[in-house]
Amino acid sequence: MSDKKSLLEAYKEASFPVDGHGKRNIEVLQAAFKEIEGDVDSDIYGKGATIEDFQGRMAEFLGKESAVFFPSGTMAQQIALRIWCDQKGLKKIAYHPLSHLELHEEDALKQLHHIEPILIADKTRVIRLDDVMNLQEDIACLLLELPQREIGGQLPKYEELVAISAYCRERGIKLHLDGARLFEITPYYQKSVAEISQLFDSVYVSFYKGIGGIAGAILAGDAEFTKESKVWKRRHGGDLISLYPYILSSDYYFKQRIDKMEQYYIQAKELASFYNQCSGVATTPVEPVSNMFHVHVEAPKELLESILISIYETTGIGLTRYLRETNETSCNFEVSIGDLYANLPKERVKEAFKLLNERLESTVS
Amino acid sequence: MSDKKSLLEAYKEASFPVDGHGKRNIEVLQAAFKEIEGDVDSDIYGKGATIEDFQGRMAEFLGKESAVFFPSGTMAQQIALRIWCDQKGLKKIAYHPLSHLELHEEDALKQLHHIEPILIADKTRVIRLDDVMNLQEDIACLLLELPQREIGGQLPKYEELVAISAYCRERGIKLHLDGARLFEITPYYQKSVAEISQLFDSVYVSFYKGIGGIAGAILAGDAEFTKESKVWKRRHGGDLISLYPYILSSDYYFKQRIDKMEQYYIQAKELASFYNQCSGVATTPVEPVSNMFHVHVEAPKELLESILISIYETTGIGLTRYLRETNETSCNFEVSIGDLYANLPKERVKEAFKLLNERLESTVS
Repeated sequence: MSDKKSLLEAYKEASFPVDGHGKRNIEVLQAAFKEIEGDVDSDIYGKGATIEDFQGRMAEFLGKESAVFFPSGTMAQQIALRIWCDQKGLKKIAYHPLSHLELHEEDALKQLHHIEPILIADKTRVIRLDDVMNLQEDIACLLLELPQREIGGQLPKYEELVAISAYCRERGIKLHLDGARLFEITPYYQKSVAEISQLFDSVYVSFYKGIGGIAGAILAGDAEFTKESKVWKRRHGGDLISLYPYILSSDYYFKQRIDKMEQYYIQAKELASFYNQCSGVATTPVEPVSNMFHVHVEAPKELLESILISIYETTGIGLTRYLRETNETSCNFEVSIGDLYANLPKERVKEAFKLLNERLESTVS
Repeated sequence: MSDKKSLLEAYKEASFPVDGHGKRNIEVLQAAFKEIEGDVDSDIYGKGATIEDFQGRMAEFLGKESAVFFPSGTMAQQIALRIWCDQKGLKKIAYHPLSHLELHEEDALKQLHHIEPILIADKTRVIRLDDVMNLQEDIACLLLELPQREIGGQLPKYEELVAISAYCRERGIKLHLDGARLFEITPYYQKSVAEISQLFDSVYVSFYKGIGGIAGAILAGDAEFTKESKVWKRRHGGDLISLYPYILSSDYYFKQRIDKMEQYYIQAKELASFYNQCSGVATTPVEPVSNMFHVHVEAPKELLESILISIYETTGIGLTRYLRETNETSCNFEVSIGDLYANLPKERVKEAFKLLNERLESTVS
């Protein structure tokens, strides 16, 4: 039977995968370019209507003076921090211990920019005003990631954010927003993207998370900041002769999905509640504050894999493509809601969670 | 009349532009993706068949153990130099004073990598063995650009190249090839890409010059070198979740054009001879050694602009889209032969050069 099949294979074969917007394949590009006239000019090294129009619209949407399109957030954020450090003549910044820069960028901040990061807050929670006030060292910039992805997409209360912003302005600390999933938190905060952004000196947003584009990022701030960021973009090797494959597809999917963030948020809360009703399962946050959350299951990874594979085969519902081992007796995974959720057959979803609960109950007992 | 029209406008309106492969517009992307099945998977952060297959084929073509796709040559080359410097524990390299790294990268080598470049040879000629032997300082790496773009695409004799390579190996100096236009020089050298590459420890090639792709580069070398280059690619922010828009289009145009390099070379020699027959005009090199050359004209920029605009309007032949002022009495521009040249109506080309010669003669006299 399914003994030899991997969880990923079973997920790919499932008729109704739950996560995201669908497959990352060539069709994503082809769909975005189908309606565009072939004689639209490429951007050329950061210039031309194709890039300037999008940057202008994103600056306006983010409530910032200016915006620059980057191939990646990794590039955009290092550059933002470098600019703020150079401006203050101090190569120290602070961020969360589970920041993308700490976990996924091969120590680039130190290796390329010689910037020393100070880790604040502990790994289980978001940064609080207290953490910032209790810093023992001067810093040029504080980076906040909203939502904090590696802990399930948690958020501070909005008032706390306002207080941190006010404190940083008072102390001359630049505040940078890692807004990889910024669009996704507006329904919870009940604030516009521009309202949230105005608390920050610089803002990065991504176009392949909730927006579901191919790749690419925007970095926004005042005109002097973004002008300098273009020099660094050239230095990093990100000032490509043509970025339009990313820009035009970002624009296409932005228009399609920017107004669906509330839908994804509501659906994430529904799906999390299904998980939380299962024996030995808990989500972080218990009630999601964006389109994402983490699922923690009290079962060994191998056992849960075989349970999930059998559920996918029985119901056609694909819950997750992978499991991470937390320890020998439990595991976890991440869920991000996108377009696919709306089309799931509800009865089958219920059946899948009924089966999951039954199998886990029989395991735990 | 044409008084108010810019040279660029006149070039764009010309029925038969001479330079390159045609317009850099969206159609370049659409054509490359028209025949690809929509369910082909994206590469994911440097992994997957889409990127690995292309890297494998390029490694083989370049005669190297391994190859990595980069979004840009700017990124790839800095990384190559950084790896060689770190390996030797010496942050000094040497290159030509008109190297891309010296002119077009905003001092990235110093600002990001703290590498000190030593400029060798003078600006009017290529690097010779003598220059390397006479270096007063130890260096970790020598970068050679073949052909040397900023001086019209000049090349050393092949025997000189072999001698430089042997000298560097003997002295423990790594040799890196800036091969942005490497494919374009094989007909002149009568050597394969792999034969030329084997003289070097690391090789960068571009896919939007002679190949005419959208953007992107390959960096090749031994497996240890390319493995390390992937870590730096992540640090630079170039390890995008999806690079396939560049990879698949590079592959598409590579297949279309790699065998046309000899054609472009022969045509470049023909076109250069037309220029050299005009009064007050000389090309560098006099006889091109690739698909490119520079044109130097003994006429003030504004005057030549008005002459060219009138020629474009009379003949439909667009010779160049821009002029650079050399000094008050002369100017210059670059020519790169691509697919367009083969379709030019020869009679009109002759007419254009007849007119150019007449106008320049009446100017000079």
